[in-house]
Amino acid sequence: MPAARIDLNSDVGEGFGAWAGGPDDELIPLLTSVNVACGFHAGDPSIMRRTCAAAVAAGCAIGAQVSYPDLAGFGRRFMEMRPAELTDAVLYQIGALEAMAGVADGRVAYVKPHGALYNAIVHHAAQAGAVAAAVREHGGGLAVLGLPGSEIETACAAAGIRFVVEGFADRAYTPDGRLVPRTEPGALLTDPAAAAAQAVALWEGGVASICVHSDTPGAPAILAAVRAALEGRGAAIGAFVP
Amino acid sequence: MPAARIDLNSDVGEGFGAWAGGPDDELIPLLTSVNVACGFHAGDPSIMRRTCAAAVAAGCAIGAQVSYPDLAGFGRRFMEMRPAELTDAVLYQIGALEAMAGVADGRVAYVKPHGALYNAIVHHAAQAGAVAAAVREHGGGLAVLGLPGSEIETACAAAGIRFVVEGFADRAYTPDGRLVPRTEPGALLTDPAAAAAQAVALWEGGVASICVHSDTPGAPAILAAVRAALEGRGAAIGAFVP
Amino acid sequence: MPAARIDLNSDVGEGFGAWAGGPDDELIPLLTSVNVACGFHAGDPSIMRRTCAAAVAAGCAIGAQVSYPDLAGFGRRFMEMRPAELTDAVLYQIGALEAMAGVADGRVAYVKPHGALYNAIVHHAAQAGAVAAAVREHGGGLAVLGLPGSEIETACAAAGIRFVVEGFADRAYTPDGRLVPRTEPGALLTDPAAAAAQAVALWEGGVASICVHSDTPGAPAILAAVRAALEGRGAAIGAFVP
Amino acid sequence: MPAARIDLNSDVGEGFGAWAGGPDDELIPLLTSVNVACGFHAGDPSIMRRTCAAAVAAGCAIGAQVSYPDLAGFGRRFMEMRPAELTDAVLYQIGALEAMAGVADGRVAYVKPHGALYNAIVHHAAQAGAVAAAVREHGGGLAVLGLPGSEIETACAAAGIRFVVEGFADRAYTPDGRLVPRTEPGALLTDPAAAAAQAVALWEGGVASICVHSDTPGAPAILAAVRAALEGRGAAIGAFVP
Repeated sequence: MPAARIDLNSDVGEGFGAWAGGPDDELIPLLTSVNVACGFHAGDPSIMRRTCAAAVAAGCAIGAQVSYPDLAGFGRRFMEMRPAELTDAVLYQIGALEAMAGVADGRVAYVKPHGALYNAIVHHAAQAGAVAAAVREHGGGLAVLGLPGSEIETACAAAGIRFVVEGFADRAYTPDGRLVPRTEPGALLTDPAAAAAQAVALWEGGVASICVHSDTPGAPAILAAVRAALEGRGAAIGAFVP
Repeated sequence: MPAARIDLNSDVGEGFGAWAGGPDDELIPLLTSVNVACGFHAGDPSIMRRTCAAAVAAGCAIGAQVSYPDLAGFGRRFMEMRPAELTDAVLYQIGALEAMAGVADGRVAYVKPHGALYNAIVHHAAQAGAVAAAVREHGGGLAVLGLPGSEIETACAAAGIRFVVEGFADRAYTPDGRLVPRTEPGALLTDPAAAAAQAVALWEGGVASICVHSDTPGAPAILAAVRAALEGRGAAIGAFVP
Repeated sequence: MPAARIDLNSDVGEGFGAWAGGPDDELIPLLTSVNVACGFHAGDPSIMRRTCAAAVAAGCAIGAQVSYPDLAGFGRRFMEMRPAELTDAVLYQIGALEAMAGVADGRVAYVKPHGALYNAIVHHAAQAGAVAAAVREHGGGLAVLGLPGSEIETACAAAGIRFVVEGFADRAYTPDGRLVPRTEPGALLTDPAAAAAQAVALWEGGVASICVHSDTPGAPAILAAVRAALEGRGAAIGAFVP
Repeated sequence: MPAARIDLNSDVGEGFGAWAGGPDDELIPLLTSVNVACGFHAGDPSIMRRTCAAAVAAGCAIGAQVSYPDLAGFGRRFMEMRPAELTDAVLYQIGALEAMAGVADGRVAYVKPHGALYNAIVHHAAQAGAVAAAVREHGGGLAVLGLPGSEIETACAAAGIRFVVEGFADRAYTPDGRLVPRTEPGALLTDPAAAAAQAVALWEGGVASICVHSDTPGAPAILAAVRAALEGRGAAIGAFVP
């Protein structure tokens, strides 16, 4: 049975200094939750501030898109950080984003780990525990957005943290529900209609949030198709946090 | 007439990764306010956390020692940042430190700019205004610690921010009250008795906080002598913030 | 009387990690000299290598586009570096680029300072001297590309370094030969015909190299017009270095 | 049978900006090869230059101590870099050090990977191959210093690169010749006499270079004891490169 409400999230604020990020201006009006880069893989203080302001203007929930400290690698390279230093790095990023959200009259409502960290905490129990520890120690009642069946889901459950399950409209799944690796053909769904159909299926399967990657070619069109299809099925589009 | 209360502040948490900072363990028990590096010139998330925990344990007020983004130069090189980007950089650092202070059951109470930024905002009105704007926009009622007669004092007054005047126990002053430049002989007072005498004079002159630089040779002994001399004169040693 | 030969240069390799730089693929075939970012304001090792390979394939001379260490500010913010540390930073960047040029079967032939450093050494004698010292100490006979009448020209003359005068096709000049500041209207010439006419005038005035900024809107079309106009006047398009 | 000649190497130049490195001044006069940090885990251009000058003055061979790009972690955290980007990162560091060695009238003679990279290429064939590819593509006939029986030894053999086997005077070995992990008790030999005895045994076992870690407590005394013991046995102390 589908959830009463379905959230739409995407990564935003992923420029740095003179370098532009993705098509945030087109995406944010169609989203309900935005994962804002916090300066460790992308995002600088001014970009974070502008992105939070755009999120608040569009009524989106703001999430901290926390990452390994790796600007050169865009956070896409696994780093063997010790749990305690990873916990502290996550806390630092949350706090920095809270300041930028605050001056935009917003607040940080959730955490979505980025890139290699996102992938690591699917199976790396120590790093998953470190991310959950950061959220618990932060004490602000933040939710965590992630993959179902992951170590981070387990760690959040153990720490009393709300874990929100997401699915990907623009990534192919295997019959048993795993993501097709990006290195395989057909891993990416770039056809808006196909992505929309998959989003509807994910929603019907009980997923609470649908992600469209902002760097998938044609992301704004894909997101528009996803949103229209969900609305056409009567889904209530809205953030998973109040 | 001396202030009822005199604060003792120093820069702490100025290591980075594998590199150690100053003699924090010896200084913090003698201080009432600690200026914690926020990651832009020194300090990493784990050092910030440990430093905040030590500050809370010692009953010190925690200040954000904000800086230009210049690890390689330890924040000692003037950077021509535009005011808006400087404001955002200051906010980012305050927020990051707030998260680390929070998990140590502390809170950030004030801002003390570091190094080249500290020096710049004595006379650089645009950058002084940018720092004051960050504190005002932050909205948390933070005080700013700085040099009397500076542009930052003016900017804080204009922005309704509490500005706290500090003096340096370990730096020589000219007869008209300016700091002797570090490049001149005798600029640094490394004799504990001389520094203590100067601290008493600064206190009697109405300064609200006395700074001992943590990288002055023999800083712990200087600080101990300063503290003992002020106590001997009946000064109430205590943080300038509640 | 125009020079026998006219060089065409532009900044290339200015991406970083996941972030793309300018339209290098369109520019490099039309250029004779390429200013390759060396990792301090833009450029990472792999981008540097690819850019050098493209330069060698197109028969372009390779220059080290050295910068202040400021990725977040794209090297556009003045930094008060001490001369000795600036000299060493320039040497480091030259050496790093030499390794990347070497594996592309090329070599570094000249230095062109970037952004705020370029502007600083027009008038800042100490930093100009530091850049010239780096080139002299390097000992590889590199030329320096810069603005006529600048401190860096003076410093190169004093150090026995070949200084090559450049003019900007896409920037307006005042009647007395100075650049109109970018903050003023009309500072940028984005009309290819106007830029081409100015390039011809600069060449006729004796300039040895014409720069088209790779981030000027429509840079490839401007560069093509500049090149065609110079060729139409019988100029021999070629690098200023052998 | 012991080698005719035994080299003594240590990591040097591992400060950064305002932060000091190890006791280089005490170590370098006792060494024959110095592994100079290249800016990715430690070392900045000015430190690299000073360290190369000290090495040349002491008659030491200069090695590029290349690392993952991780200042915050001192290069001690494994990073999942793709082979091509690792090759380019190694080349960049070699080139940068070559410039700094050049102005000190020295030259880079070998490569010794640092920290987590050193450990990774013992068993990680792809990264080992990437390091060997950098040295081969560099083309300057550099040697590689590393652990016997490692993937990097295999990769160097395949690439026609001279591989030099080192042993550690200050690290305990298991009976079958592996290093006791640093997390186990007794992993570090801090007694100069014990380290000296082990160095002699390593030399007798055919090792070409003995490493003393510059961050082992008492490193200068350990190194002095190692050197004296080897000399006492008639070993010819000298660099493995001409």
